[in-house]
Amino acid sequence: MNSASAAMTGTLSIAGLGPGDPNLVTPEVTAALAQATDVIGYVPYVARVAPRPGLTLHPSDNRVERDRAAHALRLASEGAHVVIVSSGDPGVFAMASAVFEVVEAGPAEWRSLDIRVLPGITAMLAASARAGAPLGHDFCTINLSDNLKPWPLIARRIALAAEADFAIAFYNPRSNARPDTLDAALAVLRETYADARLVLFARAVSTPEEQLRIVPLPEARGDMADMRTVVIVGSSRTRMIDRPGAAPYLYTPRSAA
Amino acid sequence: MNSASAAMTGTLSIAGLGPGDPNLVTPEVTAALAQATDVIGYVPYVARVAPRPGLTLHPSDNRVERDRAAHALRLASEGAHVVIVSSGDPGVFAMASAVFEVVEAGPAEWRSLDIRVLPGITAMLAASARAGAPLGHDFCTINLSDNLKPWPLIARRIALAAEADFAIAFYNPRSNARPDTLDAALAVLRETYADARLVLFARAVSTPEEQLRIVPLPEARGDMADMRTVVIVGSSRTRMIDRPGAAPYLYTPRSAA
Repeated sequence: MNSASAAMTGTLSIAGLGPGDPNLVTPEVTAALAQATDVIGYVPYVARVAPRPGLTLHPSDNRVERDRAAHALRLASEGAHVVIVSSGDPGVFAMASAVFEVVEAGPAEWRSLDIRVLPGITAMLAASARAGAPLGHDFCTINLSDNLKPWPLIARRIALAAEADFAIAFYNPRSNARPDTLDAALAVLRETYADARLVLFARAVSTPEEQLRIVPLPEARGDMADMRTVVIVGSSRTRMIDRPGAAPYLYTPRSAA
Repeated sequence: MNSASAAMTGTLSIAGLGPGDPNLVTPEVTAALAQATDVIGYVPYVARVAPRPGLTLHPSDNRVERDRAAHALRLASEGAHVVIVSSGDPGVFAMASAVFEVVEAGPAEWRSLDIRVLPGITAMLAASARAGAPLGHDFCTINLSDNLKPWPLIARRIALAAEADFAIAFYNPRSNARPDTLDAALAVLRETYADARLVLFARAVSTPEEQLRIVPLPEARGDMADMRTVVIVGSSRTRMIDRPGAAPYLYTPRSAA
């Protein structure tokens, strides 16, 4: 099979597995996995795909997104049905952008491949749902990892987001390599806000390790988050509804005033 | 059955049906609908739920969110298993916030109800996936409806989002009652940006009426959108990959510079 005809038959899907619970995986993703010849992704995500005859699993380490994308594109060019798996949604701080970066820089025939992005339930929406509806009004979504962007840009974005009174979802708030990132982000918020804000720490939502915690901004600390946490900072309008003997609801009303 | 014991047994789920394709409905939502005694929502969303014996469908008009929420809470208080359906994700400019507004203002026993928000694939993530990955870096999400917030606040948020160089997803960009909203938003963007931006108009993604169109900001016009459109404005980094004989990919690289 030459590369031109192979390009007609191979496929590449970049699929979101959602936050963890199999009941949050879309049927579209389940069907793509059932038809795949090869599944590629970070070790813990590939571990969520059941082995079966005819399917080759290719787990790889973190921080090799471009290598992983190129591997997937080569296999699809050769006629394979490849699924790259991400947690959450592949288009939100995950593999989809990495694949398109590699396509743009790669051989022309990769542009003829059938590449599809299959959306998933991203972490902030799973966290918001579990807590109530803190993202029910205008919001923004910021990746706190400074691997690929300088901290001053991140800090400026946080300050402008606070000035705009968005609710803010922070992805990748903290890692072993970046133990102080979230504390630095919270410091920017404290400098910008004149009044109180509620902060949701949502860890491993929809898994057995799920933990939710709501604290006022002055009490929020970086070490309340880890690599599996998404942090949602409320807008000026975000409120809690206390409940007898149960966790409170956290939500942002639809009206601005 | 008195209201205290009924509150123990009735349930209320606020469920996201995704953008339209049944293959984008999570199994969690499908299971909730299978167990429901009552389904409540805006007419076109309730029409997506198959009738069956034992299930009462309660379609209602748009703009009656609080009435709909109160109806659902009353039924659940009486022991019903109620599902309120939204398109997309119920926590993003949809019914979840309306329900919590009504819970907060309502009788104390409503706080004892088992209320669960079941996330779904929200319009911007479905649109982003179909086009490539324009939301692959930091982004924000703004509802352009001024039913519940004053236009000057919306305009200020747009200007700050542009200054922060977020990609921006606009929900409810235009309606018959607000034919000029999107043009006003695009004007704010043109005043703020010194350079070019790409704009994606994504209509009815995942349905037979799906239409995608990408134009540079100077060519973008309000009448390219309607009530079924989500509009995504790229950041300064958002790029197109041209493809021979196929729609281009639109994506935002992961790195900031």
